[in-house]
Amino acid sequence: MSTTPATVIEHGDPLDDGRAFRRCLGQFATGVTVVTTANGEKLSGMTVNSFSSVSIDPALVLWSIRTESASLKAFTETDSFVINVLSDEQVDHCKVFGAPSDTQFNEVEWEKGIHGDPILTGAVAHFECTMHQVIEAGDHFIIIGDVKNFTRFAGTPLLFAQGQFGLPAPFPSKRDAETAQNESAQTSAEDAPIFLTLLKTADQKLSQDFIEFREQNKIEMPLARVLNTLAVSPVNVDQLCRRSYLGENTVEDALIQLSSEGLVQVEDGKWALTDSGREFQIGLRTSAEEFNAKKLEGISEEDIESAKKVLHALIGKDA
Amino acid sequence: MSTTPATVIEHGDPLDDGRAFRRCLGQFATGVTVVTTANGEKLSGMTVNSFSSVSIDPALVLWSIRTESASLKAFTETDSFVINVLSDEQVDHCKVFGAPSDTQFNEVEWEKGIHGDPILTGAVAHFECTMHQVIEAGDHFIIIGDVKNFTRFAGTPLLFAQGQFGLPAPFPSKRDAETAQNESAQTSAEDAPIFLTLLKTADQKLSQDFIEFREQNKIEMPLARVLNTLAVSPVNVDQLCRRSYLGENTVEDALIQLSSEGLVQVEDGKWALTDSGREFQIGLRTSAEEFNAKKLEGISEEDIESAKKVLHALIGKDA
Repeated sequence: MSTTPATVIEHGDPLDDGRAFRRCLGQFATGVTVVTTANGEKLSGMTVNSFSSVSIDPALVLWSIRTESASLKAFTETDSFVINVLSDEQVDHCKVFGAPSDTQFNEVEWEKGIHGDPILTGAVAHFECTMHQVIEAGDHFIIIGDVKNFTRFAGTPLLFAQGQFGLPAPFPSKRDAETAQNESAQTSAEDAPIFLTLLKTADQKLSQDFIEFREQNKIEMPLARVLNTLAVSPVNVDQLCRRSYLGENTVEDALIQLSSEGLVQVEDGKWALTDSGREFQIGLRTSAEEFNAKKLEGISEEDIESAKKVLHALIGKDA
Repeated sequence: MSTTPATVIEHGDPLDDGRAFRRCLGQFATGVTVVTTANGEKLSGMTVNSFSSVSIDPALVLWSIRTESASLKAFTETDSFVINVLSDEQVDHCKVFGAPSDTQFNEVEWEKGIHGDPILTGAVAHFECTMHQVIEAGDHFIIIGDVKNFTRFAGTPLLFAQGQFGLPAPFPSKRDAETAQNESAQTSAEDAPIFLTLLKTADQKLSQDFIEFREQNKIEMPLARVLNTLAVSPVNVDQLCRRSYLGENTVEDALIQLSSEGLVQVEDGKWALTDSGREFQIGLRTSAEEFNAKKLEGISEEDIESAKKVLHALIGKDA
């Protein structure tokens, strides 16, 4: 894996292809925040992943807002705002705060923070800020906040990486994967119990192999996700984003590419596979099944059935 | 899981406790970059996770550097620099570029980019920038770059979240977890083959449950990782970071807390468990094993052994 030469997917001048540039920016994984503010009675909230820490003392953080955003005034003319860092259970919040609406604060739980701005229940962190500085930078403004109060909660942060929502997975310790191989769990350096580590190591290995397998077949994951989602039923873009856990830009890019190849079509706002799209998707599915079969090759049917039984039992069990 | 009330871990004014503020900032997951530049013959490189995209047209990105950084001049007085977004196979690069040294560019593969700055081989993205603006902001400078050339590579980005290195895991589709439960893989909306999805669902469920189990026992993951790493052998801070996949600040925070509780001690630069630390770590291990046993309760020995066999076989197989 580490010895395969680096495969360039795309490159160039960002001004020649803004969408490709955006995809490249997506290689840098980020958390997802919702920035909120209250201007009098009017509440505003906005999904943002351009958050970054700046300074510890004074305590400064920043984020960026499009100069053409409908919420620009709400956020540049306010005295205070809150950065809510979303948890892995709040992927729905991204959509709710993805575009301005009068009802968004009816759809989520929140309360008032120290400056009167809404703080979202269930976030893994809140940063309650006063306005420090607004800096013009190209087609965005950089907004710097002075953090007056922070709160850290238990929980797992939501993640956005390579156009896709997800969650962070810690490395399984290499040492542990080795001890797992040797069936001697006693001297493990890892906190997790041995079966969990074994499970994680196998999951990460197989996922990695599958991504590489798809790349060798020149299919990037988002395209496959879109095709497979549409294979279940025609849906609009919103539903497609939600079901595939892909970001809106990623879904749009995929639809543009798949349309141009005649694999998908839109009717009354609903996207569906064309006949050749369906054929292609069946091919994808078949190759995935071949990958699966190859990975399980040489393992007895009985062992595989037992393994499935154990995995099902683990999934079914409550915490 | 979604109904448990949010547990506050710590909160307050950042100026009262900079370390706690930093831990709270760590709730926002980020990728990891190495920023590089050439000033004549002199090459500089620096691990940075404060990267953020700013503008698409013009194409601007930003990152921040401490005003007290030894590399400050190299990066504020240069005309150009490169942002290298690290892959999950480059966790060693973080350490190499964690502090200035004359040999760091001997330890990694690189070549010269369009402006003569080093671009690191194996990164998942390169952004070759000219200097756009430097803005003072508290104890850091914000550096804004004008991206002249971007390159996107195949691969998985490295991740830093909650003080810990890792990699992004996509959500398994909920729909798919259900079909997996029903043993009917045919109408799957998910690209991944069914065994892989089953594996991922089980892994994520168990990992989540284990984190919650540790939290209920008032042990945050980094503390457990440090104790378990030291249980194998005494090591210095560098080795501790590398073996535990924890960031330096996280390891330092953990050592401060564990020392104050008399669980660890340092001798000749090497950290080790004290007697009560060893006792505590054995307790941790035992409770992890109890968690494990409880999860596997009701599943037959034979099925568990078969499942282990399958997982070992999967881990052992080459891509």
